[in-house]
Amino acid sequence: MTRLNHTFATHPATQPLYLSAPDAVTLVRRLGLKHCIAGIAEHIRADFLRWPDFDKSARVANHFKNGVIELMPISNETTYSFKYVNGHPQNTAIGLSTVMAFGVLADVSTGAPTLLSELTLTTALRTAATSALAAQTLARPNSRVMALIGNGAQSEFQAIAFQHLLGIDTLRLFDIDPQATAKLVANLSSSGLKLQVCASTAEAVKGADIVTTVTADKACATIVSADMLAPGMHINAVGGDCPGKTELAAEVLEAAKVFVEFTPQTRIEGDIQQMHADFAVTELWEVLSCTATGRDNDDQITVFDSVGFALEDFSALRFMHKAALAQGLGERLALIPQMADPKNLFGTLHIASPKPSAVAPTPCYF
Amino acid sequence: MTRLNHTFATHPATQPLYLSAPDAVTLVRRLGLKHCIAGIAEHIRADFLRWPDFDKSARVANHFKNGVIELMPISNETTYSFKYVNGHPQNTAIGLSTVMAFGVLADVSTGAPTLLSELTLTTALRTAATSALAAQTLARPNSRVMALIGNGAQSEFQAIAFQHLLGIDTLRLFDIDPQATAKLVANLSSSGLKLQVCASTAEAVKGADIVTTVTADKACATIVSADMLAPGMHINAVGGDCPGKTELAAEVLEAAKVFVEFTPQTRIEGDIQQMHADFAVTELWEVLSCTATGRDNDDQITVFDSVGFALEDFSALRFMHKAALAQGLGERLALIPQMADPKNLFGTLHIASPKPSAVAPTPCYF
Repeated sequence: MTRLNHTFATHPATQPLYLSAPDAVTLVRRLGLKHCIAGIAEHIRADFLRWPDFDKSARVANHFKNGVIELMPISNETTYSFKYVNGHPQNTAIGLSTVMAFGVLADVSTGAPTLLSELTLTTALRTAATSALAAQTLARPNSRVMALIGNGAQSEFQAIAFQHLLGIDTLRLFDIDPQATAKLVANLSSSGLKLQVCASTAEAVKGADIVTTVTADKACATIVSADMLAPGMHINAVGGDCPGKTELAAEVLEAAKVFVEFTPQTRIEGDIQQMHADFAVTELWEVLSCTATGRDNDDQITVFDSVGFALEDFSALRFMHKAALAQGLGERLALIPQMADPKNLFGTLHIASPKPSAVAPTPCYF
Repeated sequence: MTRLNHTFATHPATQPLYLSAPDAVTLVRRLGLKHCIAGIAEHIRADFLRWPDFDKSARVANHFKNGVIELMPISNETTYSFKYVNGHPQNTAIGLSTVMAFGVLADVSTGAPTLLSELTLTTALRTAATSALAAQTLARPNSRVMALIGNGAQSEFQAIAFQHLLGIDTLRLFDIDPQATAKLVANLSSSGLKLQVCASTAEAVKGADIVTTVTADKACATIVSADMLAPGMHINAVGGDCPGKTELAAEVLEAAKVFVEFTPQTRIEGDIQQMHADFAVTELWEVLSCTATGRDNDDQITVFDSVGFALEDFSALRFMHKAALAQGLGERLALIPQMADPKNLFGTLHIASPKPSAVAPTPCYF
């Protein structure tokens, strides 16, 4: 292993743990997917309960012809994180994911990075965890049937999260691409979930306690319209998550009590981008911390207009970091120079000598 | 090496090169410091000549009790980069650098990261390269004597850059900490430079063609005052690089023609933060591209008010990436999941099977 060079002293603060994509897969397989999603949900709940403690910076986006690259930083008084994430819809044509991500945790007291982790798989886990956490708070407690509209990359994670954190036992499936649904059915064939393939969104939604929309259409689509609504329904709207991309008809939002993660971001990226700037919303953290009410009665329609917020990545990274350390997974990266004298950066170039500044450098050096 | 798992297909776009701090040291030792600085300077020149092509985002800073963590993204139509950098002045007391950094290059066409590199050492190289590039353009061509005020972590890199890119043969040294100067003298004893240790800034500046200030004082200090100026002097002001931190007296700026990297950033962070918002400055890229004049005559005093701009990191990362590939240095990281079907993220969890969706998952999986 060449990443940790023995000629460098080993100050632990300069050696972030590196959790690769294969390591994250190993971690999820060892702990079980449902336990990972549940663990991340608990971390998200704990962090949402300290909501006012966080420095919630705006995400920084660089836009290109084919897509976007974003940085999403957030911090509290002890820990900093950021996520790097792209969005390139044409990637699948060349065998790449539309969305790829990685993230970093850092120690606020020194600024040293402590974790570099994959976040492509982990983002799917945290999105499902956030959806389930919101539904635990907002859906009717006896919810058993979920419509799952959009059967793409995120769908199975939503299914497992709702099965284990909500008690959902039946999925009513629809996707405009039958192959996507077939893939989901194959992936979840031994999950214990009853899988009912439907011919339309309207059919899938019929009789559902919860409606989860995770469609990928890059447009202002109307996946769920007002005529599909039934009293007491909870709608978990995951796919409408960037400007110009929505899933719910405006009438659905008007008929419902709407909950969001971080209002300023959701007004730009969420389904409520269709509504006036003063359209009433409640932030999820307020409900979790009992400073606002959630569902008011069993007949009310609730909508969680989810777009994905930096704090959820912060929570997921914290969970993965702890779990990886406990499992002995990951490796240390020599990302930061280790210096005998931190004021002598030049001295790091004299790695042949343990006390670089005390000896003459080799002529070749310059 | 566990970072690349054989059960994942190898799509090259998902395996960024990882250049560790020890690898960067090896690279600099193999190529020679002066060649690395010269190579980075050429990359900075080339990128500054395409200045209007860049999406110059603002840096995002999270501030803490002890310091700051910043993300600095920038991109053009083909390449994206960001730098992570902290600033924690109290770190040296626990054996850590005040500033630690790493950076990423990514392919704009897919959003995939192509390089993860240390940037602590490399930032020192790019800062020196930028200073020398500016001085090549702004200092009198026959400059041979440089005052070097502040003999800390950056100083030797400035010295080597000016020796090899400008022809400086004599350094006049001053630091309020004699140990810092002693360290510099030891580090550069075989460099070929004449090293003259001075008792004050005023003494060091006397007779200097170029004055480089790289002091670390976290305050609005007056390192160089108007009485020290001589006709034709070029001042390379590196240390005044954040709000509340300056090195030059306002009278020095008033007496000089002042050049900056990116005006909106320098008005906040540079020595010109002391001046009115309409204080005249010229951007370095304009001089390099011959759309503005640099030094007007041999008697003019010129100031390069350097704060460090994201584009310089972009250029430095490009140089290090190419050089590491040419030298066979660095390793590939499995930071992004490799998927047989990029629409089947869930399938990555079934790593025992090459066609995950075609087989039933193991029960332990869920």
